[in-house]
Amino acid sequence: MIYFHSDYCQGAHPKVMEALNKTNLEFTDGYGLDPHCAHAEELVKDLIGKHDCSVHFLVGGTPCNVTVIAAALRPYEAVISARTGHAYVHETGGVEATGHRVIVEDGIDGKLTPDLIDRAYVEYQDEHTVLPKLVYISHPTEIGTIYSKAELTALRRKCDELGLYLYLDGARLGTALTCSKNDLSIREIASLCDAFYIGGTKNGALFGEALVINNPAIDDHFRWMMKRQAGILAKGRLLGVQFEALLEGGENSIYYEMAAHSNRLADKLREGLRALGVRFYSDSPTNQIFPVLPAEAVNELRKDFFFYDWAQASDGMQPVRLVTSWGTKDSDVDAFLDATRRLLFS
Amino acid sequence: MIYFHSDYCQGAHPKVMEALNKTNLEFTDGYGLDPHCAHAEELVKDLIGKHDCSVHFLVGGTPCNVTVIAAALRPYEAVISARTGHAYVHETGGVEATGHRVIVEDGIDGKLTPDLIDRAYVEYQDEHTVLPKLVYISHPTEIGTIYSKAELTALRRKCDELGLYLYLDGARLGTALTCSKNDLSIREIASLCDAFYIGGTKNGALFGEALVINNPAIDDHFRWMMKRQAGILAKGRLLGVQFEALLEGGENSIYYEMAAHSNRLADKLREGLRALGVRFYSDSPTNQIFPVLPAEAVNELRKDFFFYDWAQASDGMQPVRLVTSWGTKDSDVDAFLDATRRLLFS
Amino acid sequence: MIYFHSDYCQGAHPKVMEALNKTNLEFTDGYGLDPHCAHAEELVKDLIGKHDCSVHFLVGGTPCNVTVIAAALRPYEAVISARTGHAYVHETGGVEATGHRVIVEDGIDGKLTPDLIDRAYVEYQDEHTVLPKLVYISHPTEIGTIYSKAELTALRRKCDELGLYLYLDGARLGTALTCSKNDLSIREIASLCDAFYIGGTKNGALFGEALVINNPAIDDHFRWMMKRQAGILAKGRLLGVQFEALLEGGENSIYYEMAAHSNRLADKLREGLRALGVRFYSDSPTNQIFPVLPAEAVNELRKDFFFYDWAQASDGMQPVRLVTSWGTKDSDVDAFLDATRRLLFS
Amino acid sequence: MIYFHSDYCQGAHPKVMEALNKTNLEFTDGYGLDPHCAHAEELVKDLIGKHDCSVHFLVGGTPCNVTVIAAALRPYEAVISARTGHAYVHETGGVEATGHRVIVEDGIDGKLTPDLIDRAYVEYQDEHTVLPKLVYISHPTEIGTIYSKAELTALRRKCDELGLYLYLDGARLGTALTCSKNDLSIREIASLCDAFYIGGTKNGALFGEALVINNPAIDDHFRWMMKRQAGILAKGRLLGVQFEALLEGGENSIYYEMAAHSNRLADKLREGLRALGVRFYSDSPTNQIFPVLPAEAVNELRKDFFFYDWAQASDGMQPVRLVTSWGTKDSDVDAFLDATRRLLFS
Repeated sequence: MIYFHSDYCQGAHPKVMEALNKTNLEFTDGYGLDPHCAHAEELVKDLIGKHDCSVHFLVGGTPCNVTVIAAALRPYEAVISARTGHAYVHETGGVEATGHRVIVEDGIDGKLTPDLIDRAYVEYQDEHTVLPKLVYISHPTEIGTIYSKAELTALRRKCDELGLYLYLDGARLGTALTCSKNDLSIREIASLCDAFYIGGTKNGALFGEALVINNPAIDDHFRWMMKRQAGILAKGRLLGVQFEALLEGGENSIYYEMAAHSNRLADKLREGLRALGVRFYSDSPTNQIFPVLPAEAVNELRKDFFFYDWAQASDGMQPVRLVTSWGTKDSDVDAFLDATRRLLFS
Repeated sequence: MIYFHSDYCQGAHPKVMEALNKTNLEFTDGYGLDPHCAHAEELVKDLIGKHDCSVHFLVGGTPCNVTVIAAALRPYEAVISARTGHAYVHETGGVEATGHRVIVEDGIDGKLTPDLIDRAYVEYQDEHTVLPKLVYISHPTEIGTIYSKAELTALRRKCDELGLYLYLDGARLGTALTCSKNDLSIREIASLCDAFYIGGTKNGALFGEALVINNPAIDDHFRWMMKRQAGILAKGRLLGVQFEALLEGGENSIYYEMAAHSNRLADKLREGLRALGVRFYSDSPTNQIFPVLPAEAVNELRKDFFFYDWAQASDGMQPVRLVTSWGTKDSDVDAFLDATRRLLFS
Repeated sequence: MIYFHSDYCQGAHPKVMEALNKTNLEFTDGYGLDPHCAHAEELVKDLIGKHDCSVHFLVGGTPCNVTVIAAALRPYEAVISARTGHAYVHETGGVEATGHRVIVEDGIDGKLTPDLIDRAYVEYQDEHTVLPKLVYISHPTEIGTIYSKAELTALRRKCDELGLYLYLDGARLGTALTCSKNDLSIREIASLCDAFYIGGTKNGALFGEALVINNPAIDDHFRWMMKRQAGILAKGRLLGVQFEALLEGGENSIYYEMAAHSNRLADKLREGLRALGVRFYSDSPTNQIFPVLPAEAVNELRKDFFFYDWAQASDGMQPVRLVTSWGTKDSDVDAFLDATRRLLFS
Repeated sequence: MIYFHSDYCQGAHPKVMEALNKTNLEFTDGYGLDPHCAHAEELVKDLIGKHDCSVHFLVGGTPCNVTVIAAALRPYEAVISARTGHAYVHETGGVEATGHRVIVEDGIDGKLTPDLIDRAYVEYQDEHTVLPKLVYISHPTEIGTIYSKAELTALRRKCDELGLYLYLDGARLGTALTCSKNDLSIREIASLCDAFYIGGTKNGALFGEALVINNPAIDDHFRWMMKRQAGILAKGRLLGVQFEALLEGGENSIYYEMAAHSNRLADKLREGLRALGVRFYSDSPTNQIFPVLPAEAVNELRKDFFFYDWAQASDGMQPVRLVTSWGTKDSDVDAFLDATRRLLFS
């Protein structure tokens, strides 16, 4: 069985495991108050070129999203998200559990635009309605697309105009930063967002995300918020140790290297399928691609490959999601392309 | 610096690391739906001698407590806890964040009794008051004491009488099960509680707790509750792999061995201090002990040993907490005793 | 200034005031535990032809909606509502404040259909998503339309099929029951819904709604839920006294009479405007009508009449909302029609 | 049956009813945006001698408490209250429903002191614990006692020192202001508290409280908070009309007159019982008194008088609560004293 169903199917990159093994018997203080977290925080700040911010390490993306939103909003305030946004669609109401609404707009290629924010904003402006206050975006989005520098800058301007926070969910940030269509550096992201996180879980960590908060209003007593949301890990140093291993070397780190590898194999898969005449559900330049295949072929492919259906089939065609990761091999991609070729042309 | 400040100061037992290393490159499904979690679940059920229950693996104790309580209670229902209970005192209002009150009673040696439950219960019985529904206990307690079989059985009876759930926080369950004064097996605990967890974080795991739910009313859609509370780990298999390593062999597992080691060194420390005439803040038979030392001696000891003050000093005497773990060495204990002897008798 | 902006612009029907005056100096117990509430409960049960239910009196519609939803749902469960639904659009996130999502579908004429429920339902079926559990409808809807017997029966069937609760917001129930197009009696509504309320505030009470709960699962400890949501009135008898006055006589009560009066004047206004060639934003047979008028005429009308704009103007045409009530007079309607005629044809 | 069980057993003072009757058919805007609320707001500001504050009218005391607390606190922050505090003991966890803990201290005569606040404060000062932020007091307290000017000033100083809000629940404020032992004017209260309310429900209104907020941090978007907590009344003018009637004339208003009447009859009852040798559970100078009577006599008295037991009986003696109101007559008190005299001395 070859896995294309997600980028969290294996453990960690061997260098991450090596760091965990090497530091395993050290004694340190808990809850993230240890030298590894302090060092990893410096690595993050160097990478983003920004030191007037704070960095918190959390176990996963959902804890990041929920804690940032709960910390940022007054009780009557709300989030604006694309309908495909993870915080809306795949967190079992974690945001609502903290008392806040997620206002959804049908995104364009999974993305929000200034116009969509305006549209959500104008409907909610008296005391009988919630008040939009935080724009939640994913980069790459849940359908693999990315924001350009112009697009993210335009969102920032709109947020400034309306007094909104801009928060970027970077669960797969590495593949956005290293894909061929990208024109947005992590330093620019850091300068444009009130908060964002650098996802580790889906790029070679056992688990863990590095959350950067630029806006002091969101950062106020943030560790209290993390604990209240059950999100402080006792052995917090595990997060520091992993991010040391991931980010050492900055843009030459294994974090960038793994993401580039994932993208290269996704590119290969995409081009290979395109050459077979396959069309795609979304125009993703990153490590998630969404080919639309004959439902019968999909059923055959499922015998040897593990992947998810993405949307309802129609007219006998089934959109699926294929995800590559740092652990995907060229031979995995070759095998999928060979199998698909056989199924489509035999 | 020698660490007695907690049992989460190191990484994991070498056999846990070995298991993580060995399985690191395996591909599995995520979110705990993998063969390692399934196998670890069987190991738990074999150990507790009970198969009509469900087992969930969570990252830490606070997520266990909060998720069980949120799942068990209707909105107007409340928890009864001893004042020292972790869920009350050290989770930054995580329970209240889910909308529920924790009613506190001054425990006896950190423990609840049927009388204390009665006392809490009678005050809350009309629609203007919350309704107590879940009894939260820790075993061992936060001050190291343990429930006897008679005591836990009496709590169960009281809970049955009043229609309450009994939930046991087993963050340090291993040291309760293996200490010299214990007369309560894990099978008995499993038969007496509606839910409890077997703590891994504080006994040799990198992180992770195995939550056992016996009562279907609490277990209903529990994975939805876990996700809503941001408590499902993407690479859930990390929890399964660790508990496989911890529990393989049941009562002969490293889980029991590590806890017994912690207790042996705590016993040695306790007896050594007692021989020096030191008295104790609580009568703990487990791996947390609370000697009361001259404040000046404490300040000196702090230079070489890392530990916490436990309560306010009075009359120049300072209660402190010393915690041993699977990684504590005989020489660490000897060093502490030597230093204390010198300070007290020079 | 003539008021068409809502049906809560005056105090109460004189007979309601008379009842409050007459009983004012009586001593009774508080919190709704008085003979007037008990009698009003019987009047409600007689009217709906159902005695195996419970009746609670609350101060307003928002408290009814929020309390029913909070009582009915487990934490991870969600509401399905039309986008225009009051609980979604005009309660400042009161539902989310209790931890629950409102899933919105674009309604058809402000109404939900079995297909829309299906559509919402299928997207939310694993532990990463909320679980739809309660269908919220308004009757009449926020744009004045009503459910037919066939439509409500179909919703009930769909709810039974999917295991959902059906809750009907009856803020303006009287005008639904008494409008010319209605084919659905209150007895049928009572037999089809898990819970619904008979709105008093918008039909001649000072304030107050009579909430009927048929499903014991929702009614469990409901007075605890009411108090927790700050919704029990100290002098609860005020609600009982008002509903005695409103409902005495059943279908011959002032409740029905006032609603019929509102509808008659809305009909007159509607037909009058239609005769002037005016078209409407929604096809409402009840006491809220939504004519689309030239923006310039609207600005002129505003000088003598108080009403709200309903939606954005387009092409110089402005949809407005006109609401009649028990206190609206024929002369008020005549004045509006005269003024409009002058503005359109001069 | 003569009622001493509370001060909410009748409707409203005749002048309040007269005002409601007189304004009943007026048309006004809803939700408190009407001339009567505006006028009542001015009356409140004149009475408290303070115009740099805001005034909101709510339906009851529980909505005031819950909304102020939810508006004032960040998610991890907590309330400090005496154990007898209404917000803790009689609101079914309404505060916890908004996500906040109420930290309780055993009050002294039902009151908090600077020392008790210190005691609560010091225990909660790192990220693993909630952070106390708002001091909740009742004046008079739930056992009838009142704060002196010196006591309230000392609380204010302590709150300033620790950065806490001071909030005063004035459900029975009138009887505090007009009792013989009072040395604290409403102007002083207004200058010392961040927020407080002037209770109408328990002093001659049908319902309603006038909430004064001095601190802009609490007042920020307060109407959004009110609506989110389901606490904006559609016909808000009912609250304005009532407070116009209650407060017209300031310290010569019926608000002061009714409270003074209640106190006079409570004094008469207290002195009469004291003359019979009866002792009291608390030393209350206001309209709630707590005589301790032989349990047998209490059972007899219950046949003709309606009142509540207050605490558990012991040694055959039963503490009860007797409450006088604006509607209590001298003859009611005489009857109770006569009956008691007969029972004690026959």
